[in-house]
Amino acid sequence: MGRKMLFMDGHYITRRITMAKNDLTLPEMIAEITPVNKDWIAKARGRTAQLVMPTRALGRLHDYAEQICAIQETLSPAVNQKAILIMAGDHGVVDEGVSAYPQVITGEMVKAFLHGGAGINAIARHVKADVWVVDMGIIPDIDGEGMEHKDRFLPAKVSRGTSNFTKGSAMTPEEAEKAVLTGFHLATERFKKGTQILGTGDMGIGNTTPSAAIGTVITGIPLDDMVGRGTGVDDEGLLKKKDAIQRGIEKNRPDPQNGLDVLSKVGGFEIGGIVGCILAGAYHHRPVVIDGFISTAGALVARALCPAVIDYLFAGHCSEEKGHRLMLKHLGLEPILDLGMRLGEGTGGALAMSIIEGALRVFKEVLTFEEAAVTNKE
Amino acid sequence: MGRKMLFMDGHYITRRITMAKNDLTLPEMIAEITPVNKDWIAKARGRTAQLVMPTRALGRLHDYAEQICAIQETLSPAVNQKAILIMAGDHGVVDEGVSAYPQVITGEMVKAFLHGGAGINAIARHVKADVWVVDMGIIPDIDGEGMEHKDRFLPAKVSRGTSNFTKGSAMTPEEAEKAVLTGFHLATERFKKGTQILGTGDMGIGNTTPSAAIGTVITGIPLDDMVGRGTGVDDEGLLKKKDAIQRGIEKNRPDPQNGLDVLSKVGGFEIGGIVGCILAGAYHHRPVVIDGFISTAGALVARALCPAVIDYLFAGHCSEEKGHRLMLKHLGLEPILDLGMRLGEGTGGALAMSIIEGALRVFKEVLTFEEAAVTNKE
Repeated sequence: MGRKMLFMDGHYITRRITMAKNDLTLPEMIAEITPVNKDWIAKARGRTAQLVMPTRALGRLHDYAEQICAIQETLSPAVNQKAILIMAGDHGVVDEGVSAYPQVITGEMVKAFLHGGAGINAIARHVKADVWVVDMGIIPDIDGEGMEHKDRFLPAKVSRGTSNFTKGSAMTPEEAEKAVLTGFHLATERFKKGTQILGTGDMGIGNTTPSAAIGTVITGIPLDDMVGRGTGVDDEGLLKKKDAIQRGIEKNRPDPQNGLDVLSKVGGFEIGGIVGCILAGAYHHRPVVIDGFISTAGALVARALCPAVIDYLFAGHCSEEKGHRLMLKHLGLEPILDLGMRLGEGTGGALAMSIIEGALRVFKEVLTFEEAAVTNKE
Repeated sequence: MGRKMLFMDGHYITRRITMAKNDLTLPEMIAEITPVNKDWIAKARGRTAQLVMPTRALGRLHDYAEQICAIQETLSPAVNQKAILIMAGDHGVVDEGVSAYPQVITGEMVKAFLHGGAGINAIARHVKADVWVVDMGIIPDIDGEGMEHKDRFLPAKVSRGTSNFTKGSAMTPEEAEKAVLTGFHLATERFKKGTQILGTGDMGIGNTTPSAAIGTVITGIPLDDMVGRGTGVDDEGLLKKKDAIQRGIEKNRPDPQNGLDVLSKVGGFEIGGIVGCILAGAYHHRPVVIDGFISTAGALVARALCPAVIDYLFAGHCSEEKGHRLMLKHLGLEPILDLGMRLGEGTGGALAMSIIEGALRVFKEVLTFEEAAVTNKE
């Protein structure tokens, strides 16, 4: 496409967003995604080297800022406008007794998000991120009536929950593609409206089960190391969970090389939506901060579809859920925070945005040795 | 003193601050410091248990909020008003070739802080903390003329730099006590003006050397594990640094059980100021966020003087400086962030304030299961 010659810094992103038409196919979209241009990292490192402090003394803060320079193709990176897309879906596999909480909570929590009363709402207010809630495929219909943030609800139901993947595929291949494209278009819409950094969130009772299934299939890491207690299943529940995943994989035989195949056979609609968000970030040159276990399962699928997405991703935190650290390691992503969180909803990613924003302020606001009239090392 | 019976929640702190007179002696102050009342932790945990999320699903964020409830003795904890006190001092031991940067930089960086152009300024603006710069004992005199933030400069010079501790005591016992009391009174002044959380910062070319000396004396951890490269000394500089510390300890024989003795013999004026800040936080029931290696050396001295201070401390981050992790472990403090930072100035503590503030928002703003009308686990 020769796009780097065509567009100047700044104009580039606007043009790309206009180009993302509603009839874009998944292969067309993926073909457009390239790794970041490493020249921008080099330029940004040049600026970091001049800041009035010992060489790279703020450690990974410098790396974060330089990565965003490369993603946004500028030395004036910005993440002032932040959004979290919480993808919600229900899961047929809860019939196997894999979760500590009843399925009805998925819809109830969607309402709690729209009332502004959940964990993600508090953290998003703190970091000044807008929260959007997407019905990617929950069982109930929600109209948002009477809810404070009803305008932040995006109905995009692919189907009323996935099928129980121990009995067959969780969804059809067409549904999997639809979920991904839905996430892509909803994220694109946010970027069009000015979002400079996107966080992925999830809600779906039972969704650590498909996430662990995706994790073990794509990474090849044994089930015992990948499966954890989610929201808190007891020992019996944990055994049921492992057993259900084992049976689901044996029944469906997902192809680890084919992200869409894995998503459709043992995934979930909200995970598909997250995959779409990640692809959209890479397509539009916007950083995406993934959250915990479920978002990272989405990242595994997205990378299987398009390896270049990894350059656009930040791992917000490492969760307490067993297997998350292994997934991150497999992706080569180092988590920003490590605070024993395990809520999902996008909370870890949202909180990490505050760190990323601090990194950009350092990059942009700290004076050089020369400007500050401070003696440099000989 | 029966103070818990005397004062109601909220009134308590005001009364205490009024009580901190200028002629308070160090033993009088220390005698007034008690561990936090654990009943407040229990009450706060009761609230956390009702939040609409799986049990304690936000991990250490809950711990932070509950600790601040106990420190401030309230279920409405607040850290909106934040301040960083950057303690600056010069060090005679730089004559031994222990630093990669020349001594003149201490004063130059003090000016950079007052111009608002250093790393701490950018991060403090991000987290909305006020930065105050204290001359605890730098060599030059600074008047702040022409500097944007000259009103944030607090001249409180104990002396023009410490003596070279390889030749004798770094300071007199009287100077050590004066440094601590100065830090205490300056922090008290901030609390009087409404500061709800205080971060400690440091500036002083060569100050990882006295900090490592304090660290190895108080913890008993071998010098080789405690001494790192500071702002970036080469192999030769590192050997000189270890040798200087070794000679300083042999020459002065500081008593590990006596914090003030250690501070006076191998410490620094800015470290004494930090000790005072930590004592002030505990005295006035305000959380103090320590930063990196130098602040943590201050925490070691403060705990040696008064073990109860530990309840009022948050470790902002774990720095790259060798030995910092060991110091924190010795204190039983888990760092909030771990991002390879090694700048000092209070940067790690300031950045961590954003996480603590997020934790309080979760504690105060998330609805209960009942309020959110969400089904709880059976």
